[in-house]
Amino acid sequence: MPTVTKYGFEDISKATIARMATYLRCLTYLEQQGTMTVSSRELASLTGVSPEQVRQDLSVFGRFGKRGTGYDIIRLKTEVEAIFGRGIEQWKCCIVGVGSLGSSLVASHMIQKWGFKYVAAFDSDPQKIGTRVERIPVYSVDDLKAVVRREHIAIGVIAVPASSARAVAKTLCDAGIRGILNFAPQSVKVPEKIPVVSVDISQEFLKLSFYIQSAEQRAREEQSQIEAASRSE
Amino acid sequence: MPTVTKYGFEDISKATIARMATYLRCLTYLEQQGTMTVSSRELASLTGVSPEQVRQDLSVFGRFGKRGTGYDIIRLKTEVEAIFGRGIEQWKCCIVGVGSLGSSLVASHMIQKWGFKYVAAFDSDPQKIGTRVERIPVYSVDDLKAVVRREHIAIGVIAVPASSARAVAKTLCDAGIRGILNFAPQSVKVPEKIPVVSVDISQEFLKLSFYIQSAEQRAREEQSQIEAASRSE
Repeated sequence: MPTVTKYGFEDISKATIARMATYLRCLTYLEQQGTMTVSSRELASLTGVSPEQVRQDLSVFGRFGKRGTGYDIIRLKTEVEAIFGRGIEQWKCCIVGVGSLGSSLVASHMIQKWGFKYVAAFDSDPQKIGTRVERIPVYSVDDLKAVVRREHIAIGVIAVPASSARAVAKTLCDAGIRGILNFAPQSVKVPEKIPVVSVDISQEFLKLSFYIQSAEQRAREEQSQIEAASRSE
Repeated sequence: MPTVTKYGFEDISKATIARMATYLRCLTYLEQQGTMTVSSRELASLTGVSPEQVRQDLSVFGRFGKRGTGYDIIRLKTEVEAIFGRGIEQWKCCIVGVGSLGSSLVASHMIQKWGFKYVAAFDSDPQKIGTRVERIPVYSVDDLKAVVRREHIAIGVIAVPASSARAVAKTLCDAGIRGILNFAPQSVKVPEKIPVVSVDISQEFLKLSFYIQSAEQRAREEQSQIEAASRSE
């Protein structure tokens, strides 16, 4: 078992964390492929991050990098995993709302290999309560607090309509949840000590439409500059 | 029809765009509730952004804000919408991959009110080709290029497994897509002029687990400082 670098939590920005998650995914993939080492340039190419940024991010793990051969994948992966607390613990999750999105989240087994595991689902629809979604039991939301406490669930995933999101977040916090992943198109208010990560899919569409307009306007401006330049020749 | 401020695309950071999307969602909600005006403080409370940040972000729209009464919701919303190109055009979308996640994305009607509309779906499963998902026809991925061109589809949403994501992105670009929303757990490479927004759900879990550990470590440190202080009294 390799020793694990102590990494000061306060030192890491949110953007760095997002990149670290990308590296971890990539290293896991390479490990599964049986690859032993990876250069910062390869890691950059596979993740879409610049090689300079990769080198800077991984400089704290520098002793695993060798000039010419690159990083030892297994050792580097162990280090990066430690940042996210894997190996230290498994994260029990519950999902609230097993509609179309909630069911697809439970059906995705992607997160299992990162140490996350759904152990309970909740819904208010009597037709769903008592059934199972992908082998996960569906309880009434009325039982949320009791089940979260009994099962020591760490993460609550909110996949209910916007109108119920805040009430669900409050119940999760009252039950002692340690963090919330919110897929409802509604921001939730929780005590400051409980982290919330929000994923709002319609906002991603809005952002994309903005970037498209921006890119196309830039292209038009460049085009008209080229045309102006060729006229003045 | 209110006049619309010309907003320099280059001036706006990605973080600002994300907040603008949040304001737009919030303003739409308030408008539906029949509310006429909103103060920067209320907007801050509803969106989880600080009041100072709200005021700064909306300062370009300052002439709609009145001290004491706040912003005229309908006029402000029209301005913010213009940033995202609503009213200017509808955005035709296609989805590639109608598995569990892809189907749930098509089933979500959230994005319609922002002007986005699915007009085609693609899959490689012969059982799915020729059927419909939420009234959207499912074509073979072999027909992707032809359909995207014929229908003038602007946005391609990738919901295929990681192993196919890059090939799909390439085909979408070859077909003349204007932007990509990538839900596959794999970064895609496209020409620089085509914007890509990636949503990787397992990365959001990883990030959350990091924030939880970080928050809990901070709480422990604060606790031990309090204990040390009380011992030294």
